[in-house]
Amino acid sequence: MAEYRVGVLGATGAVGQKFIHLLRNHPWFKVTALGASERSAGKTYRDAANWVESTEMPEDIAKLTVTTCDPARMDVDFVFSGMDSAVATDIERSFAEAGIPVISNARNYRQHETVPLMVAEVNPDHAELIKSQSFDPNGRGFIVTNPNCVCIPLVLALKPIVDAYGVDEVILTSMQAVSGAGYPGVPSLDILGNILPYISGEEEKIGLEPLKLLGKLENGKVKFAEIPIQATSVRVPVIDGHLLSVTARLSKKPGDIEEVKNVVRNWKNPIADLNLPTGPDKPVRLYDDFRYPQPRHQSLAENGMQVGMGRLRASNIMDIAFTALGHNTIRGAAGCSILNAELLHAKGYFHS
Amino acid sequence: MAEYRVGVLGATGAVGQKFIHLLRNHPWFKVTALGASERSAGKTYRDAANWVESTEMPEDIAKLTVTTCDPARMDVDFVFSGMDSAVATDIERSFAEAGIPVISNARNYRQHETVPLMVAEVNPDHAELIKSQSFDPNGRGFIVTNPNCVCIPLVLALKPIVDAYGVDEVILTSMQAVSGAGYPGVPSLDILGNILPYISGEEEKIGLEPLKLLGKLENGKVKFAEIPIQATSVRVPVIDGHLLSVTARLSKKPGDIEEVKNVVRNWKNPIADLNLPTGPDKPVRLYDDFRYPQPRHQSLAENGMQVGMGRLRASNIMDIAFTALGHNTIRGAAGCSILNAELLHAKGYFHS
Amino acid sequence: MAEYRVGVLGATGAVGQKFIHLLRNHPWFKVTALGASERSAGKTYRDAANWVESTEMPEDIAKLTVTTCDPARMDVDFVFSGMDSAVATDIERSFAEAGIPVISNARNYRQHETVPLMVAEVNPDHAELIKSQSFDPNGRGFIVTNPNCVCIPLVLALKPIVDAYGVDEVILTSMQAVSGAGYPGVPSLDILGNILPYISGEEEKIGLEPLKLLGKLENGKVKFAEIPIQATSVRVPVIDGHLLSVTARLSKKPGDIEEVKNVVRNWKNPIADLNLPTGPDKPVRLYDDFRYPQPRHQSLAENGMQVGMGRLRASNIMDIAFTALGHNTIRGAAGCSILNAELLHAKGYFHS
Amino acid sequence: MAEYRVGVLGATGAVGQKFIHLLRNHPWFKVTALGASERSAGKTYRDAANWVESTEMPEDIAKLTVTTCDPARMDVDFVFSGMDSAVATDIERSFAEAGIPVISNARNYRQHETVPLMVAEVNPDHAELIKSQSFDPNGRGFIVTNPNCVCIPLVLALKPIVDAYGVDEVILTSMQAVSGAGYPGVPSLDILGNILPYISGEEEKIGLEPLKLLGKLENGKVKFAEIPIQATSVRVPVIDGHLLSVTARLSKKPGDIEEVKNVVRNWKNPIADLNLPTGPDKPVRLYDDFRYPQPRHQSLAENGMQVGMGRLRASNIMDIAFTALGHNTIRGAAGCSILNAELLHAKGYFHS
Repeated sequence: MAEYRVGVLGATGAVGQKFIHLLRNHPWFKVTALGASERSAGKTYRDAANWVESTEMPEDIAKLTVTTCDPARMDVDFVFSGMDSAVATDIERSFAEAGIPVISNARNYRQHETVPLMVAEVNPDHAELIKSQSFDPNGRGFIVTNPNCVCIPLVLALKPIVDAYGVDEVILTSMQAVSGAGYPGVPSLDILGNILPYISGEEEKIGLEPLKLLGKLENGKVKFAEIPIQATSVRVPVIDGHLLSVTARLSKKPGDIEEVKNVVRNWKNPIADLNLPTGPDKPVRLYDDFRYPQPRHQSLAENGMQVGMGRLRASNIMDIAFTALGHNTIRGAAGCSILNAELLHAKGYFHS
Repeated sequence: MAEYRVGVLGATGAVGQKFIHLLRNHPWFKVTALGASERSAGKTYRDAANWVESTEMPEDIAKLTVTTCDPARMDVDFVFSGMDSAVATDIERSFAEAGIPVISNARNYRQHETVPLMVAEVNPDHAELIKSQSFDPNGRGFIVTNPNCVCIPLVLALKPIVDAYGVDEVILTSMQAVSGAGYPGVPSLDILGNILPYISGEEEKIGLEPLKLLGKLENGKVKFAEIPIQATSVRVPVIDGHLLSVTARLSKKPGDIEEVKNVVRNWKNPIADLNLPTGPDKPVRLYDDFRYPQPRHQSLAENGMQVGMGRLRASNIMDIAFTALGHNTIRGAAGCSILNAELLHAKGYFHS
Repeated sequence: MAEYRVGVLGATGAVGQKFIHLLRNHPWFKVTALGASERSAGKTYRDAANWVESTEMPEDIAKLTVTTCDPARMDVDFVFSGMDSAVATDIERSFAEAGIPVISNARNYRQHETVPLMVAEVNPDHAELIKSQSFDPNGRGFIVTNPNCVCIPLVLALKPIVDAYGVDEVILTSMQAVSGAGYPGVPSLDILGNILPYISGEEEKIGLEPLKLLGKLENGKVKFAEIPIQATSVRVPVIDGHLLSVTARLSKKPGDIEEVKNVVRNWKNPIADLNLPTGPDKPVRLYDDFRYPQPRHQSLAENGMQVGMGRLRASNIMDIAFTALGHNTIRGAAGCSILNAELLHAKGYFHS
Repeated sequence: MAEYRVGVLGATGAVGQKFIHLLRNHPWFKVTALGASERSAGKTYRDAANWVESTEMPEDIAKLTVTTCDPARMDVDFVFSGMDSAVATDIERSFAEAGIPVISNARNYRQHETVPLMVAEVNPDHAELIKSQSFDPNGRGFIVTNPNCVCIPLVLALKPIVDAYGVDEVILTSMQAVSGAGYPGVPSLDILGNILPYISGEEEKIGLEPLKLLGKLENGKVKFAEIPIQATSVRVPVIDGHLLSVTARLSKKPGDIEEVKNVVRNWKNPIADLNLPTGPDKPVRLYDDFRYPQPRHQSLAENGMQVGMGRLRASNIMDIAFTALGHNTIRGAAGCSILNAELLHAKGYFHS
């Protein structure tokens, strides 16, 4: 039975649609309100949205009337936000102030001191930051964010290594799927049979967000990790799935590569016991066969929530090199938000 | 007027076809003999070859009768070799022994102590190694090779940096076009909308060949450069053009990134004065616009012989990061061989 | 509970893998034997097959030992055949003779007078032909085939029209996905960003097989339909899903196009009452939105078993024009065979 | 030496860029003025245009200052128009009225009674219509148009057949490249690995424009051909080159298919004697090899001005079937306009 009435902000956009798609059969969260721009408000969702998911628009959602993103118009227990960053700052705050928790994929509050930037299996303890938030004097509304779509597979793949050895430096090239640019996104004339060697704003986020995610909570604040990260982000003609080529220097030298492989294989997911509905059995899977993981074939592993790691080998320059693959719109966006919300429910942060 | 009668070994393969295509209007070299396997021998080239070039098969070549790769059957001044490495060792040697120079794209002799591994603008002086070859007691036959298709743009892009600062370490991810795998090569079911994260044998060559190319000739031998190189080579759904994402540590620290850019812009091509027909005006072009170079748009710059360099920037981990693009079957294979041959002609190594 | 022990002939090939994939959770059919060539025999399936499905190889299948395609070595109730046509004739017959029914996707027996060529929802009554088969004097073994991957969506889309109006002439262009060519199939160098305007043997099958499928059973024989069909079959850079552009002349003139649409919408699936596990709720779905169906988005409708029909409109030359889309390796191959087998079970043709 | 100073209307758009690209070394026409929207006016072309051609923006063009599309601001002998149809009607007329001929790729005047809709090799005599135009009382300004990008290869391929046999009916499926939708055009998320089965407005133009092109000039007016044409136009993931699958009923029955092939092979280009600089030696080439023509390989034949015809065969329903390929932005757009202008010069319609 659905326990929560859920709103989606930015409901007509690509991320908003993914929220709706992923929540269509959710055991706890039922989408009951849809917020979008003035242009869409007043229309049924069927008329307002240019549905780009392959599955059908859920019939019950299609009939909902879209409203503006106004807490007064959306009678819900909490909202997921897939809003454009150009408008998210004020709107997300207004929901938090109105006592409605915001679980957001937008980047606006990711670096806010009291807002958790969270990947459920990586830094679930950061949820505690919520207590220091002052958006809502009644303590019901708050904001929780998840990171950029590259940072998610990056920190999930690094987390076992960080736990076992510490990581000092990371150099990576991220080969990113077109769905990461939203819709209409990348023109086909630009990307068919081509690579675009630059994605605006991406490398900065990859250099910064993992430091908060891998940071330690000390005295109610996040002490950022100190790991220089250098990223080169390119766009490739792939639909879904960002593939990362990563090289890392470790703080403590590993015995041999087999030891590192076992560290990954045996890493214990800290929230496994919670059995969250969207949580993958294995958040990180190490492929031994050097041909995997591949975006088209392994992105949807565990419903798109598992990060694949491959080609783990010793580096002759740093310590290790590997590839990491994450489904950018599921694990790397809406799915990450949903799992965060499930964690927050399990930890008792929602007051329904 | 063509001064040399030229043979092509492996004439029906993808590289052989590219030789034929690039030589169709060459001012010095005229293809007059075609060597291939027993299966093709005796047929006209039109019947023997599954022509994959977009331009038409040159009419005069179409009529030539293919022979086996036998120096006794190919009455030529020298040969280009686009042979499969499985058979190149004996055949290439047999031509050299018969007094017929072999300008080869095959990998078999690249690490042979007396065989130049050469990119004409990078280490033209290595041609001198030929004098130490003993394949042909009469001193007419010899073997000269060019490196792997990734190494060529890599060393061309690095050369100005090496000259100005020295390079200590290189980490790169090479995103490689499907034409690099020959024909039939990569199955479409594997690569459409996908990335294959591993290319057999590639990373080893990238780790080794640049060290010979950037090595110094001392006492008639090549003293290899000592630069650890770590490569991750992946296959992407691009037809032509390998794009490299490179990070490098320099021996001498540069002033600022603008200084490095000027080093690249002002690098002097050591063979510019020879005005070789296939030589690009500018072997390396630095793009200031971060959107370039792109495989589909810039690979054919200067007839596919120019390497594009882009996104040159300071690295927070090593010293610099940049992208490099090279047309893998022209600059990175047949075109590199042809330019090597032109250089050898200019230096008087051919006895026609 | 699985009632039948099932073998797969050609188990390591692309079609064989699809059978295994589609049967992994089948309620009636359990794969217990795998037949392939001498080269694979004796190996575990894990070692013998180059698995190209995106999902994991089922663990229980991976452990099975592959045998040759020999009825004496495969202790099963019936077999699915995904064999190459080069070897299927003798092998399929040998199974039928040994009393083991063969449900085949191979083309070899499609035009055999006593062998049903069957699409379960189109000509289920043709199963009766089995009774006239003489492969097995004990009457247990028989052969049933399904048509080519283009013919299946074609006849499914045409069937409601044929029933209501009759069809006199069909002109179509079939734009076919690369998975239709098996593995390794079409070289990426040929098809990336391209169209191949010819597929060997395809147009002949499209011209012939629908005539048997739409034929009437009279006196225990199939009287072929008499419908000239002209096909142009091209290969497009799509992974799965053949899209057909069809124009048809009808025997009886329809009132208006809305009437024809209703004919399609209201067509009654003759085997709906059997509730076969692989049978789609709606074998043919008419899309009103002209943007659909599209191969990447609608091929997997109803687990790949539903044919999509779109752009149904009046033709100014013949009577109607429309598009039809079918998943070529599911509805158009292995899935069609499985549904045929389910129908045969329901009709009592299997003796387990 | 350039004899004419030429303006380009819509200079920053995709078609405008193609005009500039194709005219960069034109012997008669020199681009000296660039018209675009208010937004671009006043900027240099380098700053105003998002250059999407693969070759570099010509240096002399880059420095030109863009103006609005105003005849008073463009001091030229004639203009090419690559304008958006939303604005072309008034602007094109204003140039004609000001005495400046307009050679237009826009669709606005294609069906105007006094405006030639022209493919130079198909209906060069239609130029005579100009004499009946009344835009410019001084008789210097006029408008000439070329058809839609599918109609051009269609009528060029049909013309030899029309001349020899007459054509009564045509059914075709056009598989159209993404460059036909301009820039940004088709979102990559829509078309990667997919087919879009509908292109708005396309089929109507294909049904109408060939009738004017193949019409006869009678008493100073075009008597339209009466050929029902039914088109299905789909978008495919191809960069350049529209491939048509055509079936046609002929008025006079051909002897056999070899006779038809010879008709195509021996068709005499009516403007061959003019030796126009952009005119292909052979406007239509018949490929005997069924594997050709293919968009990626043959679109650029004769600099993109030759139409390829393939798979010519007898139809069992109508009389013949064949494929036709045309480069949609060269032969099918800007190149067609340029050749029309060359023809008009040769016929003395320009007063420079």
